Amino acid sequence: MSSSERPTGLIAKSGIELLTWGTPNGHKASIILEELKAAYGKDYVWQGINISENVQKEPWFTKYSPNGRIPAIVDHDRNDFSVFEGAAILAYLTRHYDPEHKFSFTDSDDLSRCEQWISWQHGGLGPMQGQANHFYRLAKERIPYPTQRYVGETERLYGVLDHQLQDREYLVGPGKGKYSIADIANFGWVNIAYFSGVDLSKFPNLEKWWKRVHDRPAVKKGTSVPTESKIANAAYQRRLKEEPEFKENEDKLKELGNKAKEQYSYKYVSP
Amino acid sequence: MSSSERPTGLIAKSGIELLTWGTPNGHKASIILEELKAAYGKDYVWQGINISENVQKEPWFTKYSPNGRIPAIVDHDRNDFSVFEGAAILAYLTRHYDPEHKFSFTDSDDLSRCEQWISWQHGGLGPMQGQANHFYRLAKERIPYPTQRYVGETERLYGVLDHQLQDREYLVGPGKGKYSIADIANFGWVNIAYFSGVDLSKFPNLEKWWKRVHDRPAVKKGTSVPTESKIANAAYQRRLKEEPEFKENEDKLKELGNKAKEQYSYKYVSP
Repeated sequence: MSSSERPTGLIAKSGIELLTWGTPNGHKASIILEELKAAYGKDYVWQGINISENVQKEPWFTKYSPNGRIPAIVDHDRNDFSVFEGAAILAYLTRHYDPEHKFSFTDSDDLSRCEQWISWQHGGLGPMQGQANHFYRLAKERIPYPTQRYVGETERLYGVLDHQLQDREYLVGPGKGKYSIADIANFGWVNIAYFSGVDLSKFPNLEKWWKRVHDRPAVKKGTSVPTESKIANAAYQRRLKEEPEFKENEDKLKELGNKAKEQYSYKYVSP
Repeated sequence: MSSSERPTGLIAKSGIELLTWGTPNGHKASIILEELKAAYGKDYVWQGINISENVQKEPWFTKYSPNGRIPAIVDHDRNDFSVFEGAAILAYLTRHYDPEHKFSFTDSDDLSRCEQWISWQHGGLGPMQGQANHFYRLAKERIPYPTQRYVGETERLYGVLDHQLQDREYLVGPGKGKYSIADIANFGWVNIAYFSGVDLSKFPNLEKWWKRVHDRPAVKKGTSVPTESKIANAAYQRRLKEEPEFKENEDKLKELGNKAKEQYSYKYVSP
């Protein structure tokens, strides 16, 4: 399934082929595929698309994912039909391969609520936390204004999730809710909160939800495609304790982040 | 339907009530509602939620839209069921009120393609062009790095749409495609290309598509809720000719945008 060689095309003839990398968006696809595997025995193969080497910009790949981004899936059992965009992949896979609706909904109101929280993640949490990552740590320069803008917006969005989870176990569903693709869509981003400069422990309902989803065997497997994440909350906290150099660098970033917030008089408010 | 007073709660008892403002995301909801009105006689009422006065942050509003953002709808004919997030609103309204599938699809592959292009807009074009607006013109400071980052990313995304439309009239559907909610989702943002610092005329297939969608009577009506846009491409081009002060300011922004691109050696590439 994995390969150290640079992928040059599809490798499977049947089932679902996942083209992905170990990012929060990639994990949406690998988690739902692991859940479907555990629940129904639905098998899939994946190829690691190394985004730092721009494999996702090659013509063979953009044929399946015209935006040049991961994840994408190809369904070899349905005429090699391809799907790009995490939200659309979650909808497609449950529509075709979740006949008992273990991770999706049949009630039309819950179906809409599920679409609402997936859309909210897809248009808000994902892109904004992505920008937080960029300005908080990845960009060549540390620029205060966009740093506090995006870390702050991510905190606001965490507040929205925390509020939604105040008396529920999962985002959507009757009673305290049912684990579904709405949770899967949101999990990948909350799973790298600390990497993005956000203190998850300030959002107690969300932190409990994160732990609840995190402990599912299929989630553990899904977040290890293509390799175990080094930036996820659990790994991050471990490295903070075990690697002094890592801690030093993280403390520096945190200080710069706090200064950026002060400079622009940032105050947490949500929504 | 409109009111100069600050809204304090819902005003309708039946049908769809739209809570919105004149933004690209707001227009998704008002355009589909105008299309459903023209096609089926489905009526709706709207209230203008002035986002510069933070009406969208008030408790009565966040009850329906927990993210504190427009647009949101309340369906008084279905137990006041509320929907937030543009992508979820488009799905909900066509699921319940487009029985002949004039703006949506029944074929499961086209349904997925429609979801893919709506998700692509919702997670990419919308948030990134929104950031372009912020850094190109709205933020208090003009900061070169994020300015070229987001205007550049918006251009990349326009390139993706332009490519998708190279031999089609609409984004999804057999043959040259069928006008659908995928087009409606994307239209609002392309409709303010120039405002965001992007020259639409460099994307010929997309420009033709923009004109095609723009000329629909329901789109004209939908983009006038709550008032006619002053930042849409047509109004922008008119003001450029008629208002010397407007042109002078726009030229200044353009120059700063170009300098930012030069400083970071920006080169257009898509995808």
